[in-house]
Amino acid sequence: MAKALIQMALDSLDFDQTIALAEQVAPYVDILEVGTPCIKYNGLEIVTALKNKFPNNLVLVDLKTMDAGEYEATPFYEAGADICTVLGVSDKATMGGVIKAANANNAEAQIDLINVSDKKAVATEAARNGAQIIGVHTGLDAQAAGQTPFADLKEIAGLNLGVRISVAGGLNKNTIQDTIRAGATIVVVGAAIYGADSPAESAKELRALVDAA
Amino acid sequence: MAKALIQMALDSLDFDQTIALAEQVAPYVDILEVGTPCIKYNGLEIVTALKNKFPNNLVLVDLKTMDAGEYEATPFYEAGADICTVLGVSDKATMGGVIKAANANNAEAQIDLINVSDKKAVATEAARNGAQIIGVHTGLDAQAAGQTPFADLKEIAGLNLGVRISVAGGLNKNTIQDTIRAGATIVVVGAAIYGADSPAESAKELRALVDAA
Repeated sequence: MAKALIQMALDSLDFDQTIALAEQVAPYVDILEVGTPCIKYNGLEIVTALKNKFPNNLVLVDLKTMDAGEYEATPFYEAGADICTVLGVSDKATMGGVIKAANANNAEAQIDLINVSDKKAVATEAARNGAQIIGVHTGLDAQAAGQTPFADLKEIAGLNLGVRISVAGGLNKNTIQDTIRAGATIVVVGAAIYGADSPAESAKELRALVDAA
Repeated sequence: MAKALIQMALDSLDFDQTIALAEQVAPYVDILEVGTPCIKYNGLEIVTALKNKFPNNLVLVDLKTMDAGEYEATPFYEAGADICTVLGVSDKATMGGVIKAANANNAEAQIDLINVSDKKAVATEAARNGAQIIGVHTGLDAQAAGQTPFADLKEIAGLNLGVRISVAGGLNKNTIQDTIRAGATIVVVGAAIYGADSPAESAKELRALVDAA
């Protein structure tokens, strides 16, 4: 089995701080994620900057697209995004539009299951329609209310859809190995790295844990 | 009854084209809307530019926030946004966060009912929680499949929630007056203006229709 990928969520709004954090962690993570608040605040330019500065990392743009899928996602793929996200609560046509834009640019689409009621049905249909990644995602506001992604991961992993499964929702060094053993092939880390005294040291430690899982 | 407001959806991605279109229509519309693809593409800078150039118009940022409500919306309100949108399919805490950010900046929050299953329940609770505007919204991808917002408008207007109701979904000169008579207090126009030979003439015509409704 291929090793799991680590995705670093860049949640700052500030352009320079975002680049500086990416510089600290890039050697230890696989995917640099431009968080949703970050992309809305900074626009396309930050995607171009990350692609140029970090050619050895994948870049995910967390667009959380809700409408006009192909129109919204296309310029980000054209700017070099390797993965864009689209909401599982959006129209089927919206998800289809992002998948189409991904395929046209030799890139990938991730369906974000945040707040989806029937996660099994949406994940199954998205995989059938060509989505390469299913995102099991407990949002920041839901995390603040004590929720975790682990029950949803078990459910989605049990479907054996043949797509990659990304898991986000407060993962840290205590939970990351179990998350991989439960079926995650991409683990998203945010606060566990950027909230640490040394983001680079924390990223390095998580890398070791992930590679040993 | 106060006259209905016209909201112009600025759906282009290009910064200069967005400003140029706003210049043509600003005298005839009340609200300039930075569309979701436009804000993700251009970032906060376009909000600042619109606020500076058009002090007599309100500016709505169609953030369609799905998570981290207060964190994501706050900088846009601080930059002068009069209204930001948050998805009705998001967590209650997310909607609450955007409402809190709006109130902290003497501005307004709009709950977007796009793809909400139980629109009555979400609209009722959002109004109770302090949202100033409920958005009845048939997205571009759903419009392409032939859907319209009129049945949803009837349902939401019938609740008499005491909030403003914004309606978006392919409105044009043939439907805009009936939409207002059915309870809309904000009518959103996009393609009917930017797709016209003369956006200014089209906006002027719609202004006359709205004021006569």
